[in-house]
Amino acid sequence: MSIKRHYEREFVRTFFTSPTAVEGEDDSAKMLRSAAQLTGMQAPDVWVPDNEDATAPSMRDEGVENIVEVVSEYGADFPGEIHPRIVWHRDDPATRYQGFQHMLEIADPANGAIEHIDGFVVPEVGDIDDWKKADEFITIVENEHGLEEGSLSMSVIVESGAAELALGDLRTEMGKPANNLERLFLLVDGEVDYTKDMRAMTPTGELPEWPELRHNTSRGASAAGLVAVDGPYDDIRDVDGYNERMTENQAKGMIGIWSLTPGQVVEANKSPLPPKTGSWLLEVDDREIELEAADGKQIYNGDKVRLETTDSGYVLHTGGETTELDEDDLRKKLLDMTAYVPSMDDIVDSMEEFEAAKEAGKGAIAMTQSTTLVIDGVEIDIEKDRMWDEATYQAAQTPITLFQDVYEHRPDQHEELAEMYGADIVERATNVGN
Amino acid sequence: MSIKRHYEREFVRTFFTSPTAVEGEDDSAKMLRSAAQLTGMQAPDVWVPDNEDATAPSMRDEGVENIVEVVSEYGADFPGEIHPRIVWHRDDPATRYQGFQHMLEIADPANGAIEHIDGFVVPEVGDIDDWKKADEFITIVENEHGLEEGSLSMSVIVESGAAELALGDLRTEMGKPANNLERLFLLVDGEVDYTKDMRAMTPTGELPEWPELRHNTSRGASAAGLVAVDGPYDDIRDVDGYNERMTENQAKGMIGIWSLTPGQVVEANKSPLPPKTGSWLLEVDDREIELEAADGKQIYNGDKVRLETTDSGYVLHTGGETTELDEDDLRKKLLDMTAYVPSMDDIVDSMEEFEAAKEAGKGAIAMTQSTTLVIDGVEIDIEKDRMWDEATYQAAQTPITLFQDVYEHRPDQHEELAEMYGADIVERATNVGN
Amino acid sequence: MSIKRHYEREFVRTFFTSPTAVEGEDDSAKMLRSAAQLTGMQAPDVWVPDNEDATAPSMRDEGVENIVEVVSEYGADFPGEIHPRIVWHRDDPATRYQGFQHMLEIADPANGAIEHIDGFVVPEVGDIDDWKKADEFITIVENEHGLEEGSLSMSVIVESGAAELALGDLRTEMGKPANNLERLFLLVDGEVDYTKDMRAMTPTGELPEWPELRHNTSRGASAAGLVAVDGPYDDIRDVDGYNERMTENQAKGMIGIWSLTPGQVVEANKSPLPPKTGSWLLEVDDREIELEAADGKQIYNGDKVRLETTDSGYVLHTGGETTELDEDDLRKKLLDMTAYVPSMDDIVDSMEEFEAAKEAGKGAIAMTQSTTLVIDGVEIDIEKDRMWDEATYQAAQTPITLFQDVYEHRPDQHEELAEMYGADIVERATNVGN
Repeated sequence: MSIKRHYEREFVRTFFTSPTAVEGEDDSAKMLRSAAQLTGMQAPDVWVPDNEDATAPSMRDEGVENIVEVVSEYGADFPGEIHPRIVWHRDDPATRYQGFQHMLEIADPANGAIEHIDGFVVPEVGDIDDWKKADEFITIVENEHGLEEGSLSMSVIVESGAAELALGDLRTEMGKPANNLERLFLLVDGEVDYTKDMRAMTPTGELPEWPELRHNTSRGASAAGLVAVDGPYDDIRDVDGYNERMTENQAKGMIGIWSLTPGQVVEANKSPLPPKTGSWLLEVDDREIELEAADGKQIYNGDKVRLETTDSGYVLHTGGETTELDEDDLRKKLLDMTAYVPSMDDIVDSMEEFEAAKEAGKGAIAMTQSTTLVIDGVEIDIEKDRMWDEATYQAAQTPITLFQDVYEHRPDQHEELAEMYGADIVERATNVGN
Repeated sequence: MSIKRHYEREFVRTFFTSPTAVEGEDDSAKMLRSAAQLTGMQAPDVWVPDNEDATAPSMRDEGVENIVEVVSEYGADFPGEIHPRIVWHRDDPATRYQGFQHMLEIADPANGAIEHIDGFVVPEVGDIDDWKKADEFITIVENEHGLEEGSLSMSVIVESGAAELALGDLRTEMGKPANNLERLFLLVDGEVDYTKDMRAMTPTGELPEWPELRHNTSRGASAAGLVAVDGPYDDIRDVDGYNERMTENQAKGMIGIWSLTPGQVVEANKSPLPPKTGSWLLEVDDREIELEAADGKQIYNGDKVRLETTDSGYVLHTGGETTELDEDDLRKKLLDMTAYVPSMDDIVDSMEEFEAAKEAGKGAIAMTQSTTLVIDGVEIDIEKDRMWDEATYQAAQTPITLFQDVYEHRPDQHEELAEMYGADIVERATNVGN
Repeated sequence: MSIKRHYEREFVRTFFTSPTAVEGEDDSAKMLRSAAQLTGMQAPDVWVPDNEDATAPSMRDEGVENIVEVVSEYGADFPGEIHPRIVWHRDDPATRYQGFQHMLEIADPANGAIEHIDGFVVPEVGDIDDWKKADEFITIVENEHGLEEGSLSMSVIVESGAAELALGDLRTEMGKPANNLERLFLLVDGEVDYTKDMRAMTPTGELPEWPELRHNTSRGASAAGLVAVDGPYDDIRDVDGYNERMTENQAKGMIGIWSLTPGQVVEANKSPLPPKTGSWLLEVDDREIELEAADGKQIYNGDKVRLETTDSGYVLHTGGETTELDEDDLRKKLLDMTAYVPSMDDIVDSMEEFEAAKEAGKGAIAMTQSTTLVIDGVEIDIEKDRMWDEATYQAAQTPITLFQDVYEHRPDQHEELAEMYGADIVERATNVGN
């Protein structure tokens, strides 16, 4: 057994759950078996054989057998980490005891699965004392099976107000001698059951957005050195919505998200990586619209911003206002209304240039992006300057550090990354900032 | 005296305050007397004779006498709970001592009111140690008057940063042997004084929205098994605004709200109950517009979404974009833009169907809503599927559990509920899920 | 040395940082020297000679010498407080020890600067135990140099999840005998490094808004009697954006903000003060547009709200809806759509009137604002009533108390205030509410 099996990964993009036993199939482990063989962008950073909500209560003992069987067979080759979810409930000792028994069985070295298992996911936790009960059971499992104490990680699903409050206690509690909470790894929001626990309701039955919960989970992860993951996005056909949710989460420092299908895994593995090509955004009525790039120009195709030339200059219609502007003022106004989304190439370039400048004793450099905007057929050249100083440099490192973490731990994705970005950029991105 | 008088109600929709003594009236208890006789939808779940801000400081001793007199006379018949608000301030021992004296007087069994009083509301609390001071005074009141320890509930107004922070301590503090904080019942936000305590200001003098405060109050209630209530909505003529606020609150798990008039009580008693009839929403520029139902069709009457037919299909104008679509893509697009608000009937139907399916060994069913959308005279049939699994079922239970709680504790509202929904649906709604 | 040097100011509008030593200049203290001579609206409430991020690591020892030299020379005449920022990092004992040595040097009475220095700013703090380490160093500095214990204030930059969590511990920790945390003064958000610590990222590289961080900082200040300050606004040309950020912050109770230039100091010194003249806002598609005042009328110049007269009344187009209204309903609708931003004069008037009414035994008065709205040339008179009671009065006091705090502590701004408001209003504003 390795000494520190949890925490191989500093970032986790994807948390993919599979039912452990499905009734009525010839092979109840069918879904588990197919998930175990995923590779590349379809394979998650963390795979979760789900012996809780995804599996019918009556099938959960069989689920444990299936986990053992499938992980023994395929675990050695699985490219991500493996963290089965067991049953647990803060309000029900019988469920907790069942979870304990399932962990004992899954972790038995005689069964051959445990050497491929990185930890367990514990749902429905309550306050910090409840987290300690789960931690204690894992300690006993380790002890019974001759595993090193603390070698199995523990991830939790935050799906109660009590658990949300516990996120503020982790830093203080994790060092205490009477527990092994240092084994904590992922903090995963579970918005469906959280909504029930909070007794919240919406007219359409849609889930509330819960921005504060996601902030608090991300902050808890930051303060305790853990990794924050958002809960499932149910509408699996709504790819745009899933991507919007991930962009929102990333702005909260919550890089990972639950995936319900291999299709969602692909989206979520790619979402936090910088894009291959840069793009321009135009702010229209408080929303940002991506402009269409063609021949190095950026074209706005909607009708909410209109632009005309006159004898003396320009007339711009936007947000219900009409403004007459000369060329300089128009350019200034459009600069305010536009933003540039840098590509991986741009980020690596800027970092390299800044590193060279720093080497030469300069504390800041200006990076310029220029393009031609086209609105109603009228063309305007704009140039966007951005100062890069130490702080900009360090902030830009988050996606690069993530990329490097992926590159190090997911050799199965090297080929797809090279296809996405080109081998040259991949090489430079793996080296920059080190 | 009953053993556990607080916590009769699991949900509280309405928190209605009345001045205890009004100067210059023949009968200074006039408003108290009229409030005490409210019934049905006009009567709140919790009635608060308000001996603090609603009553002039010079009238508060008389207010205590009025509470005793009016509650003795009308309390036995009042359909909701009765929780007088006394004076209190975290920074002023004189005010705290006055509050204690008022409680001693109100709770004196010789005065005949206490058997109808469920607890006290304590405003302007500070950190958790301040809450304990109020709790201790109530313990002494109980002891002096031979009431069972813990039989009077305590509700607080959260109107300081310190009190907001205390919301995170409740779970840990409530079990300690040196206090009786288990008597806690309502956590009520008081945004006016909170704004002052936070020293916040807005250009127009309107109150800030304080979404984080409301989240934290709701979470505190969830973690400690209490009930969260939002503060007063001052613009009593703005019925739409009051309802929007309640919808927002419900999405935070804050089901209750303060009411300043019997009219607001009616709105707030009804707001969290599912509607009699379902309705369709259309998302237009990030807002959801309720469509007009006519002859089973759903008509959009605005001009922000426009739809035309062409030889080859359709042209849809929305959000400044113009898109050509064939019928399938249009239907898909419109499905994305619409949402259905289920009626009480729909919810009960779905729950019953899911219960039957579960009984038959099925874990999920699809529920379908279909309608005809009409935009610019163009008609399109759409069908919205929703999967119901255990999680959907349990989430849908919140409004139903609320309804059942209302039905059990408010027989005075049975008639109005039967009028609203029809006796058949009321009957099914009271039985489903049990 | 004065006994309580920190906490002279109850409000801090501006936190202005200057590099302590700039390489390649004849006089490396040039920027420090010019900042030290600012007065009036250009001078901040708190000036921060910044020996951390604004100064290159290699220049920081020289920076300490410059602070000593410049503050000795100009400190006595500087109109605001002076709080140098030293180096610190929760994860690096070498940096912490360097910060300690710098403080020892700056505070040495032999150097002549300390009598003009109010405290130190400590960046990159972690959990509360880390705050205590900085506090302890300051205690030792005081003791070594014969300064009264607790006489130097300590302000922190909140730029980690751990520090954000510590905001909830201040009230409990500040009273403990083993520390001098009562010296705490400013809680300053540092969003750039916070974003890095939270590992957040946005497509364009812009900083996230972090509303929860700002709320929690403001709440921490409220609960512990401290002052909350927002972090730097990098785009120094974007004056509108800076002002919008301040308006948002003020609604959170965060009155102060970082300033990077004297131009930003002027904006930030003025932003929380009530305006000289009142103005009217019109709500258009969920945004509030300031109307153009001309001849006592308020004119809407956009095209998102349109108004026509018909034979039978009016037709109003707004938000994609067209409504026919008679004059009364139109007036009611427009009242709902408008808001009034009171001037300093209005606020003082209302407070004086309410004080007089209270004296005369009245608990509430109605204040009326009337104007003529002009939309598409159509004129409608409206009157807005607002009830003023004790709560309104106290809420309105925040900007007035702020004004009085400024007036008391910043005599160098008296002239500019008199120019802004007129001497008469300044006089009344300094007296009202006392």
